[in-house]
Order: sequence, then structure tokens, then C-alpha cells
Amino acid sequence: MKYHATILIELKDGILDPQGRAVEGVLTGLGYRVENVRVGRVLELELEAASEPEARESALAIARALANPVMEVYALEALRPLQEVL
Amino acid sequence: MKYHATILIELKDGILDPQGRAVEGVLTGLGYRVENVRVGRVLELELEAASEPEARESALAIARALANPVMEVYALEALRPLQEVL
Repeated sequence: MKYHATILIELKDGILDPQGRAVEGVLTGLGYRVENVRVGRVLELELEAASEPEARESALAIARALANPVMEVYALEALRPLQEVL
Repeated sequence: MKYHATILIELKDGILDPQGRAVEGVLTGLGYRVENVRVGRVLELELEAASEPEARESALAIARALANPVMEVYALEALRPLQEVL
């Protein structure tokens, strides 16, 4: 069965995020009252697995493989079965 | 009051995503059965607003300001009030 997974990979708290700082500067300049802006990556993917627990395990293994363990944290934001279209 | 917002910005379906293709190649090489891998950006930020509807409106305006309307779509993935720490 196919599953759709959404994985977030973000810098750990305390790791300097220059991109987030830049975006914060832009938003503040536009008049938005924002702070602590952090920019990370989101991955959307479809994976083949026999069951939902297997899909979850596979998605977490993928997140682990793509994240830098020293600087980043990851989370499985969403996992849902994909309807097969005939 | 302060709110924490999580915003996703992703390429529209149909827009070629070279980074997603590259990640898909790596994952396939590692033995994962994945397809349609798409890589986007996630923004985490704190914003000041008088109410939750105002915070939502502000977060969506920020997402609109940061996304490229021709190539990208955005979504407010999560919005929650931040506990004030004294």
C-alpha cells in the first residue's frame, strides 16, 4: 500500500539560522511583529509499505537519513494512506 | 499575545523540483521505495497579535509575502498561543 508522508527537518534550537534572521529582517521591515523566525525543510513523499506501522518506521528512517544529527531535528508531521487511483 | 506559527511553502504540483529528484535518487539508492519526493520550506515563527483570528490572518499574510505566487503554494500548518514565561 502507498502512504503519503510529510517530514519536517529543522535546525536545533541554539543553532544560528542566518536564513531565518534574514527572513525576520524582511518581515520586520514589512511591518510584521515577528521574532524567532526559523527556516527549515519540508519533504513530501510517497512510500510503499505493507502497513501503517511499517510506513511510519520507514518515514522516520528516511528523516534520520536526511537530517544532520549534530545540527538538525526531524519530525514526521503527517502520514496518511494514499487512495489508489485505478 | 504571542502565537507560534508553522508555515509550509512548497512548489506547485507540476513544477519541476530538482532538489526533490536528487533526494529521491539518494533514497532509492539507499533502498527506500519512495516516489514523488518534493522538497519545500518550513517557517517557524512567533508573532504578536491581539487574538487568534488576527494571528491567523497575519500568518497567512506572511506566507503570501514569502511565497512565489507563480510557482509555490503555502499553508498555515499550525498556529498555537505561546505561554508567556515570566
